[in-house]
Amino acid sequence: MTAGAIEFWYEFASTYSYPACMRISRLAEEAGVVIHWRPFLLGPLFHEQQGLNDSPFNVVPVKGEYMWRDLARICDQEGLPLNHPSQFPRNSLLAARVAIAGLDEGWTPSFSRAVYEANFVADQDISDPEVLAPLVAEAGGAPHAALAAAQSDAVKARLKDHVAQARERGVFGAPSFITADGELFWGNDRLEQALTWAVNHTTLEEFA
Amino acid sequence: MTAGAIEFWYEFASTYSYPACMRISRLAEEAGVVIHWRPFLLGPLFHEQQGLNDSPFNVVPVKGEYMWRDLARICDQEGLPLNHPSQFPRNSLLAARVAIAGLDEGWTPSFSRAVYEANFVADQDISDPEVLAPLVAEAGGAPHAALAAAQSDAVKARLKDHVAQARERGVFGAPSFITADGELFWGNDRLEQALTWAVNHTTLEEFA
Repeated sequence: MTAGAIEFWYEFASTYSYPACMRISRLAEEAGVVIHWRPFLLGPLFHEQQGLNDSPFNVVPVKGEYMWRDLARICDQEGLPLNHPSQFPRNSLLAARVAIAGLDEGWTPSFSRAVYEANFVADQDISDPEVLAPLVAEAGGAPHAALAAAQSDAVKARLKDHVAQARERGVFGAPSFITADGELFWGNDRLEQALTWAVNHTTLEEFA
Repeated sequence: MTAGAIEFWYEFASTYSYPACMRISRLAEEAGVVIHWRPFLLGPLFHEQQGLNDSPFNVVPVKGEYMWRDLARICDQEGLPLNHPSQFPRNSLLAARVAIAGLDEGWTPSFSRAVYEANFVADQDISDPEVLAPLVAEAGGAPHAALAAAQSDAVKARLKDHVAQARERGVFGAPSFITADGELFWGNDRLEQALTWAVNHTTLEEFA
């Protein structure tokens, strides 16, 4: 990682990843911090670490009820639209693979924001290639090539590697932010703190 | 509840309740918001709602590891000392009952801050009457009477009623803040938002 950089670990099914994804580019630019986009899947970690086969917000209804209200307040405050999805959590595997496919071409940030809007505003099925194709195009990618790449061994392996990296770094939820010196921050409400940490804790080696 | 008021629901074994308890009086005074102190027990709710018999931070080690680091960063930022307790979570039943006993005499806020310092700074056993007695005295209460009252049916019933009220209000963690219009905010990191809400959402009836 370069100086003043953070890894942004996000999951397309994750509710709090939505405001984080919509805010991070603006806030990181203001702070002069580079973002490394790290789409991953939280399901395998939830299962391994907590024995969960569903969102904790479904497993514990009182937490789920609170989360939707808390998310609505956050979105209100940020001026972000929010519509409770008719399905939660949505299968995020294909969207994550497409986001991985876009990393080297640079359209992953725009595509990621569009996927969250599809899921949490337009109430669309983000596991449907026909939903994702126009989002790739709007983000500046080639939909047919991107959807083909999403099914390639290389992209599948890269997503698996993201999940493995997240596990190694102690990630257990999304969104998570990790600074160059390895500090982990969990939750949309830790984004500002993570950026401040990234600015204040860069080392000389990172400038090399 | 009066105008511009919040209920502060806290549990003496809860790590994030420590910084919240140390900050709330200053921040509420600045905001002109009245605090209703609501010591309660989280254990029964954890058990009922999540099937837990231990702290989720012990049950899921990766979350526990993160929590202690996150708490250390928060305490650093707030200038609060922190020593990882040798026992976690500590039995908070007696301390909660003593805090209830102090409500009508007004020494509960000072006593509560002292209990958190005993648990999370001095690494003392807050279930020991000999640990709590001097904390009552320093807070302005009468230790012998307070410890006797803590074992009375009236105080036991009042603590049970606090737990029942917390359950009814949708509380599932600590600290929690509830405004006069029923908005629930969970976590030390929601304290400022809860106070702002309390200021902005008082109704005419509440001024009556």
